[in-house]
Amino acid sequence: MREHEYLQCLHFNSLRLPSGGFANMSLPIVLAVDDADKDRIGAAPDVALAGPDGELLAVLRSVEIYPHNKEERIARTWGTTAPGLPYVDEAIAPAGNWLIGGDLEVLQPIKYNDGLDHYRLSPQQLRDEFDKRGADAVFAFQLRNPVHNGHALLMNDTRRRLLEMGFKNPILLLHPLGGFTKADDVPLPVRMEQHSKVLEDGVLDPETTIVSIFPSPMHYAGPTEVQWHAKARINAGANFYIVGRDPAGMGHPTEKRDLYNPDHGKKVLSMAPGLEKLNILPFKVAAYDTVAKKMAFFEPSRSQDFLFISGTKMRTFAKTGENPPDGFMCPGGWKVLVDYYNSLQTEGATAPAAATV
Amino acid sequence: MREHEYLQCLHFNSLRLPSGGFANMSLPIVLAVDDADKDRIGAAPDVALAGPDGELLAVLRSVEIYPHNKEERIARTWGTTAPGLPYVDEAIAPAGNWLIGGDLEVLQPIKYNDGLDHYRLSPQQLRDEFDKRGADAVFAFQLRNPVHNGHALLMNDTRRRLLEMGFKNPILLLHPLGGFTKADDVPLPVRMEQHSKVLEDGVLDPETTIVSIFPSPMHYAGPTEVQWHAKARINAGANFYIVGRDPAGMGHPTEKRDLYNPDHGKKVLSMAPGLEKLNILPFKVAAYDTVAKKMAFFEPSRSQDFLFISGTKMRTFAKTGENPPDGFMCPGGWKVLVDYYNSLQTEGATAPAAATV
Repeated sequence: MREHEYLQCLHFNSLRLPSGGFANMSLPIVLAVDDADKDRIGAAPDVALAGPDGELLAVLRSVEIYPHNKEERIARTWGTTAPGLPYVDEAIAPAGNWLIGGDLEVLQPIKYNDGLDHYRLSPQQLRDEFDKRGADAVFAFQLRNPVHNGHALLMNDTRRRLLEMGFKNPILLLHPLGGFTKADDVPLPVRMEQHSKVLEDGVLDPETTIVSIFPSPMHYAGPTEVQWHAKARINAGANFYIVGRDPAGMGHPTEKRDLYNPDHGKKVLSMAPGLEKLNILPFKVAAYDTVAKKMAFFEPSRSQDFLFISGTKMRTFAKTGENPPDGFMCPGGWKVLVDYYNSLQTEGATAPAAATV
Repeated sequence: MREHEYLQCLHFNSLRLPSGGFANMSLPIVLAVDDADKDRIGAAPDVALAGPDGELLAVLRSVEIYPHNKEERIARTWGTTAPGLPYVDEAIAPAGNWLIGGDLEVLQPIKYNDGLDHYRLSPQQLRDEFDKRGADAVFAFQLRNPVHNGHALLMNDTRRRLLEMGFKNPILLLHPLGGFTKADDVPLPVRMEQHSKVLEDGVLDPETTIVSIFPSPMHYAGPTEVQWHAKARINAGANFYIVGRDPAGMGHPTEKRDLYNPDHGKKVLSMAPGLEKLNILPFKVAAYDTVAKKMAFFEPSRSQDFLFISGTKMRTFAKTGENPPDGFMCPGGWKVLVDYYNSLQTEGATAPAAATV
């Protein structure tokens, strides 16, 4: 991004289009450089962007370099500058004090060579895929965790509602986030294997589901980030977006409270400039129904029958080898998680430091 | 403001209009209440708003009460949460943890009874006044300091440029800010007296100038606040807005640097949603020309001839009784400042604590 785009992101969460309308853009996509890089670039108009092995990936043309005011970027993006924001610690704090923007000429698609590149479909590839399948509605589900039967219930119920609304062929875009996540989140390769099992086990229908990786880093920036999550999926052809309580939220890093008001994500999303065409599907709360012995939509009238199983609780089950209640997750998917945590413990026995991964 | 308006302010600096367009709104206009007030209000649909002497001023109808997350409000408005922001210390930190919004029914115009109410024209009164004077262009000048001849040069030159552009009767709205300012800024009554002298002395032409008080508190919120400064003047009938370096800016409260990039105010203002009709007039820098012995537009080619006299420097002159260079300010206006600082010193001799005012 150039500075005028960066400023519009920070102040307006949207970019003015030549047509006069607005495109939603709540997170700046910027490249930081340090003083040494800035000096090396000097007055050069164009800068090559290389991969980790030095391979030329893209050229940034007619560059401009402008100050990277980290404090302001963090405050306007997260609504706090408290220490301990994961993406700030990971990506912003260590970054250079300058940002470089320009016209990006991509020479070749980015490859990760991690065995998962076939899951990394571009927005155009996704739109083509939806066309090929004859989708007349596409509903997107953002996730960064293993799929349990509560998620599946929600997705299958959404499909049912879309059919009731008159759509003939609603397609689900199961779009797990593939970039940076918190250290205690389940790593991407394990999640992708778990998602495969969920489709193999028939919990989600492979005929009406497309699984693809959304290669964005997780910011945990709540109402600001959920706009990006929705906008990127619209861009890839989705027209329905499922949003729940406290999307992209987290606990406050230094205070005992949620960082964001859990309702603000949905409210801000529903009012955001440039997202007028988005259809927001409110997320019903699913929990384990101890009477029916399955994940079901929570019924306040018999709240005592329901058990909420948090991500932390789920990870504890998998780590300790304890089985979650029957019907919480399909057996194939659960085994992937148990095997992953077992492998960590084995590694941990020989290399304790790895146990914190 | 209700919560949906408050959130739009914080995230988008603009409010979506029923027509589909956007109205610029970068600062939330909110009323904080504390736990005790919230309890007293209970489930009452309507709340009376009373003045300091208990007189009924307005009714807030169909109220809603929502959390006042001060940290988030401050971070998203100022781009920092560093301690020492004047308006935060003055108005936000001591305020309650709830905000109350609703439909405002104003029963009577607010009076300050400070001898300056005749200067407090509503937007409608200002528009009527411009009509009465037959203005075909209105240019607004935001200020919170005494008017020196550099400001006057700028305003008179703007009028000249507007005449050159073909306007027949450009009118200046001299619109000093009347709400909270920093402790070391010159108080409003003194500034209003100084502005009167500037008009009496003919430095500004009373025939083509309207002086009115802008009753907003100063936030010192840079690029976020300058939008409000401009939007409020458009609302009052102005179509040209003069903007300079680092509008509404200040030094960083804890670091040795400007809080905002001095160019960002103008850039953000020029891109802000809902301000498309605003004509921004860039502020030329005026300084004291030691050769011509008057305030003149700075010429970089002979920079050694120019003397920059900051607000701090000006206040030091007035406090110490030293005269500024000839032609810096009209004698009548300067005398107002000298008398004010003399009066402080007299008070200070009997009551030292007052000397910090």
